[in-house]
Amino acid sequence: MLDASRVAATLQEALDDWDRLAPSLRALAASLDAGDVEGEPLDPSALLSPLPRAYEWVDGSAYLNHVRLVRRARGAAPPPTLETDPLVYQGGSGILLGPTDDVPLPDPAWGLDFEGEVCVVLGDVRQGTRVAEAARCVRLLCLANDLTYRNLVPAELEKGFGFFQSKPATAFSPFAATPDELGPAFRDGRVHLRLAVRWNGKQVGDLDAGADMHFSFLDLVQHLAKTRGFTAGTILGGGTVSNAGQGRGFSCIAEQRAQELVDGGAPRTRFMLPGDTIEIEMRDGAGRNLFGTIAQRVVAP
Amino acid sequence: MLDASRVAATLQEALDDWDRLAPSLRALAASLDAGDVEGEPLDPSALLSPLPRAYEWVDGSAYLNHVRLVRRARGAAPPPTLETDPLVYQGGSGILLGPTDDVPLPDPAWGLDFEGEVCVVLGDVRQGTRVAEAARCVRLLCLANDLTYRNLVPAELEKGFGFFQSKPATAFSPFAATPDELGPAFRDGRVHLRLAVRWNGKQVGDLDAGADMHFSFLDLVQHLAKTRGFTAGTILGGGTVSNAGQGRGFSCIAEQRAQELVDGGAPRTRFMLPGDTIEIEMRDGAGRNLFGTIAQRVVAP
Repeated sequence: MLDASRVAATLQEALDDWDRLAPSLRALAASLDAGDVEGEPLDPSALLSPLPRAYEWVDGSAYLNHVRLVRRARGAAPPPTLETDPLVYQGGSGILLGPTDDVPLPDPAWGLDFEGEVCVVLGDVRQGTRVAEAARCVRLLCLANDLTYRNLVPAELEKGFGFFQSKPATAFSPFAATPDELGPAFRDGRVHLRLAVRWNGKQVGDLDAGADMHFSFLDLVQHLAKTRGFTAGTILGGGTVSNAGQGRGFSCIAEQRAQELVDGGAPRTRFMLPGDTIEIEMRDGAGRNLFGTIAQRVVAP
Repeated sequence: MLDASRVAATLQEALDDWDRLAPSLRALAASLDAGDVEGEPLDPSALLSPLPRAYEWVDGSAYLNHVRLVRRARGAAPPPTLETDPLVYQGGSGILLGPTDDVPLPDPAWGLDFEGEVCVVLGDVRQGTRVAEAARCVRLLCLANDLTYRNLVPAELEKGFGFFQSKPATAFSPFAATPDELGPAFRDGRVHLRLAVRWNGKQVGDLDAGADMHFSFLDLVQHLAKTRGFTAGTILGGGTVSNAGQGRGFSCIAEQRAQELVDGGAPRTRFMLPGDTIEIEMRDGAGRNLFGTIAQRVVAP
């Protein structure tokens, strides 16, 4: 690694002034890659989330298979506009968990679930931005573990104001990458790579994050920007990655339980408990771990 | 005014290190009040929101009269837990309007409404904070104009994920005050003062922000902190100020329309249109304009 603090003290500062600062950051990275300068060793387990606190964290739900399965599990119908009008919710962004932070679980009855997601970090987005301009707003990509207390969801959504207590702090991958690092795997506003999810050391999901993303990140940006603008540093999630059909596994327990409910009349898989581990990562065709690994353990506080 | 930038470059910086920096800020204020130093003239119309972008903006709906009236207007029942479980929503906080910023209205059919609110700015709040400890988390008080596109609300809430497009950027008062500035008017986690609301120059609301606030700010902090912590600089609103019974007017158009619907079968008052003005302020017993005046004009973009 190279210390970039003489270019920008924080990632937020770089995002705030991206056009001016990004060339210097790229030059630093190039000098390290070329061996022109000697880097320092990096311990990924010491890294925080790329933005340990962000000005906004907005999460879409662009993989419709997830929406259909999870709503079926709680006896709620998907909205009639499911395929034409993106579902997004405003998440809490003031405290974001680091990639290896413990996940505190004050009450196992809350039904802690993980959700493996792909995210983009946006530059400034003006109100009224359309799909065609949205690609220019994507500064970085990363992964998220959008933790959810499933058993708090039904009563909370019943109140009509969306998620609040049912969404504890979200965790992010140790690295965020510029789109060029993904090459053609990032196209049409989607990341066409596999998301690996390991729960207690066992791979439970090997999901294609591209094909089944019904609304692209560009569609989501247009949806977000209909009535307001967004500051640089806004994190936008694509929602729990989910593939229609069977065989690729799951990136959240709720889907597995929903499938069990459909197949056998009752969910069999439990939610997370203290001691459980969850790992989420994404590799490219060359096997590079693009964003590092989210690797968390659930603990009783 | 006195420039306080040698103590803290931004209000967020002061909030991040409040215990260490607040005494210096208080000393500066005291020196100005005592005439020991000569201040500079201040043009309130040049001020931004106290936090032009914040890490979180969470808005409660603690005045139950508002919930009952507005839900009646859109044919939705208040939740059965209305009096025991606070309603809160996660607002967008990356771009917050200044107190005299124009309110852009891309489409009058969206039904632009104002909402006069009292807010607190919090210090760090740990997960699990209870009412008894919550008073120590209140750093500042201010006002908000929580703008809403009423005609976008029903379809959006129907989708189940809460407000998003129906809430454009919120505006805040030019000043935020420490609780001691309010003296006994801030007690039991409520502000016992009148909120004045003027629409197109006519006073439409003169509301008691204290008595009818069913859940106090301390109750709301406990509710928020059930499953996660909050960073210093989080803004928490109490919701549209609303008094049961008639005679004190309204702090949002939706209530007036709901009342007209109940009284006469149809709403008569229109929503805001380009050219409209809205002013919101709060005076103490001595007539001091505690937080300055939110004074905005609606404009076609």
